[in-house]
Order: sequence, then C-alpha cells, then structure tokens
Amino acid sequence: MSSITKNEIQYIRSLQERKVREEQNCFVVEGIKMVNELIDRHSEWIERIYCTEPSELSKSQIAVQQISSANLSRISSLRNPNKALAIVRRPIVQSKENNSLVLVLDGIQDPGNMGTILRTADWFGVDQLICSLETVDCFNPKVVQSSMGSLFRVNVTYTALLPVLQQTPRKVYATTLSEQENHFFSMQSPAMIIIGNEGNGISNELLKQATGMVTIPRIGQAESLNAGVATGIVLAEFMRKSIIKN
Amino acid sequence: MSSITKNEIQYIRSLQERKVREEQNCFVVEGIKMVNELIDRHSEWIERIYCTEPSELSKSQIAVQQISSANLSRISSLRNPNKALAIVRRPIVQSKENNSLVLVLDGIQDPGNMGTILRTADWFGVDQLICSLETVDCFNPKVVQSSMGSLFRVNVTYTALLPVLQQTPRKVYATTLSEQENHFFSMQSPAMIIIGNEGNGISNELLKQATGMVTIPRIGQAESLNAGVATGIVLAEFMRKSIIKN
Repeated sequence: MSSITKNEIQYIRSLQERKVREEQNCFVVEGIKMVNELIDRHSEWIERIYCTEPSELSKSQIAVQQISSANLSRISSLRNPNKALAIVRRPIVQSKENNSLVLVLDGIQDPGNMGTILRTADWFGVDQLICSLETVDCFNPKVVQSSMGSLFRVNVTYTALLPVLQQTPRKVYATTLSEQENHFFSMQSPAMIIIGNEGNGISNELLKQATGMVTIPRIGQAESLNAGVATGIVLAEFMRKSIIKN
Repeated sequence: MSSITKNEIQYIRSLQERKVREEQNCFVVEGIKMVNELIDRHSEWIERIYCTEPSELSKSQIAVQQISSANLSRISSLRNPNKALAIVRRPIVQSKENNSLVLVLDGIQDPGNMGTILRTADWFGVDQLICSLETVDCFNPKVVQSSMGSLFRVNVTYTALLPVLQQTPRKVYATTLSEQENHFFSMQSPAMIIIGNEGNGISNELLKQATGMVTIPRIGQAESLNAGVATGIVLAEFMRKSIIKN
C-alpha cells in the first residue's frame, strides 16, 4: 500500500474551500458509489482516485492510489467516509443551442438545495443554470454529494444576473408562492425561470425584469416550500406543457 | 439564571432516541425561530422552554427556564444551537373527514426528505400521512427541523401498509419514475398516493394494490429524483387538477 504524503493530505483538504477549488480548477467527489458512477459515465474529468478497496472500483485507466481508512478519514469531508475519494477537474459542459428553458438561481444558499436543484434540472433535461454571484458554489462538497453526478451534465455559470435578464430575448418568469388558488402557470418557450433565495425570495431588481410570474398556490398552512421542491414543481409543469402541448 | 440539573440534561438528550420519545410522548424543537413559530401557532403542545435569551421569545404563559450557552450546547442535538429549545408533547392532529388525498410513505429513510415531504403536504393542504413501520420517525430531531412546524398540522400514522391499501375505498396511485415521455398523470379523488423508499422505490406487494401509476417522465439523464421533489411534483399535479377541474 503506497502511503499518502502530508502535502497531498493538505492539498486535498484545501479543496474544501471555494477559492482553492477555483485556483486549482479541481474539486472532490466522495464515496464508492459516486466515484464508480463517475468512472462509468464521466471518467474524462477524473485526475486521481484514492481508495481503501480498489477491487470494488469500476475498471478504468485512471491512477488509483490505495490508502488506509485512517488516511481516507484525513482527506474526507464526510463524517463517515466511504471507501473512495476522487480529485476531479471542473467539467466544461456545453448546453444545447436553442434549449427551451434556462434555470436562473438568485442566491440559493443551502448546499443540499443546490444539489437537489441540479439533479432536478438534469432529470428534466434542463442543461443550463445561471447563478447569481451570491449563490452557493456548485463544487461545494455537500452540493457534489447531493447532485449525484448531474454536475457533469448541466452547464453552470456564476454571474451578475441583472444584465443577463435585461439582454435575453427569452421570456423571463419569476417563481413565487401565493395564497391565491385561482391559477397555476402560463409559460411560453424559450424561457428563463428564476428561483429565489430560501428566505428572501427573488430580489426586487430582478422581479422588475420578469415577463410574468409562475405561482405555486398554497392550499394548506405551511409558511413556504423548500426551494428544491418549488423548482421541481415548476420544471415539471413547464415540461408537461412542452410534452402535451396544451 | 436558574441552573439545569444533570437529570434534566440526561432526560432531554434521551429524547434524541425514538423509543424514549414514544415512551415519554414528547420530542424536542430547537432554534429561536422555530420555538417562536410554535409559541405563536401551536403553544398548546409546549411543555417547557429552555432559552439563553428569553427577551427574544414571543410572549406566552409557558414556563421558560433561562440557561447558559454552555448548557444549551449540552442539551442540543445541533452543531450550532440557536438560543432556544422546547420540550413538546406529540400533537394529536385531526385530519379532515372526506379529505380528497392521503399521502402514503413506503420506507422514506432520510430525515431531511421526511421533513420536506411533511412541509410540502402541509403546503398543499394534505393533512394525512400514513407511513410504513420502516419509515423514519417524524419526531426525529432532523425531521422536526426541516418540517418547519408542519408536524402540528398533518396527521401522521405508522402502520403496516398492506392492509390499509387492501381495505381503502380510495383510488391508490403508485408514484414511479419513467423514461417514457408520453404521459404525465391521470388521477381521481378521493385518492391515496404512495411515495417509495429513496433507493428501492415502492415494494412489490404494495405495487400490486395500486389502482394506477403516476409517472414522472425523465427527459434528461439524472438517475433519479429526490423523494421530496417527486412528492411536490405529484401533489402539485393532483391539486392543479382539483383546482382547475380539467
């Protein structure tokens, strides 16, 4: 078993910081299941794999370094590290030309929500995500764990949103929650749909750029919906309309 | 500042275990925001409040014990305890007679998903949740934190599901994920909708009891949808049909 140097340990741990990930153009994927999914579907982005049980890894040409469980714990960001950790280059994902829908995130903060939103976008074939600069980094370890590989199939950009919305020829829809029961959505392609921050919703300057609202009516008494759930409902509705053309 | 005894600390910590919560018929709610929501909306269930900053609590007749931050850390299940912790009786929530929809959970394991599902049900006015015995306890501290008070407005039962589905006069719909793009849902009231376990979906013996399937079509490439997101999509669709009667 080859050992792992202090410098390597320090380097891998430093990738838990956004700034270092950006400088190094790398991030970390953890767990035997996710690393195997990566090998099977997106191996071109993997730089190196550390693993306590190399026999359980999918076959590949990628450099694998066998390490002890104690050393895996040292480099892992998980409470319960699970056999494998990969250093991965940040993928360059091309979105489709003329895609019907682009998702816009205005300040999503929770890494779990961000991961769920990425996975939901990927499920519904939305391959472009534009995030405000305040939105949580999509290569944050917790986002990576909850996005389940969708990071490699969705183009994610961080930028100031106002100019994007001012200049797009698309319809721009702002997702809101409402107590009115009388309507759901009316949307046209090509569109951008904005999802707001968990606590504060969509900022006023962006709301002013919206062509229209998509409203999820409240029937019961909860204060709000989870941002990932709201995204799923809106994307499902948009896709349903695209599919059945009603 | 009155102190807190070792016995009290031990008792409160023991409420992190399902068995103790059931024996004592109590559970714990944490954080100043959630405790204040509870005081404002559901104070009848609160037994006692421990708080480092009683001046920040909503006004009420409930016994409040001021404690130090160090002692709050001792009784809290959170990494970053936030000023208040309440001991709360398990609420008895009456579901509406003739409610149009009952949600059935077949083995949801993740506390965050369970909390999100409760909150989403509450948003859409679904006030009855029937869970298999393997489903995570809705009074688990992480469920309580992510359900945001919905626990007090949704009737939750744990029971063997097969007899329930065999005996109900309702339509029973099984939620599934599909790669077919050609249909969404067709549902009638009154209904039960089943949501399956995160990894394994709905068990075969329950699938056999279903009147029909509700299918969320996959357009992109993600392996699966988050269980909370899937629930939101299905409930939104059911409610949309109820509202606009199409």
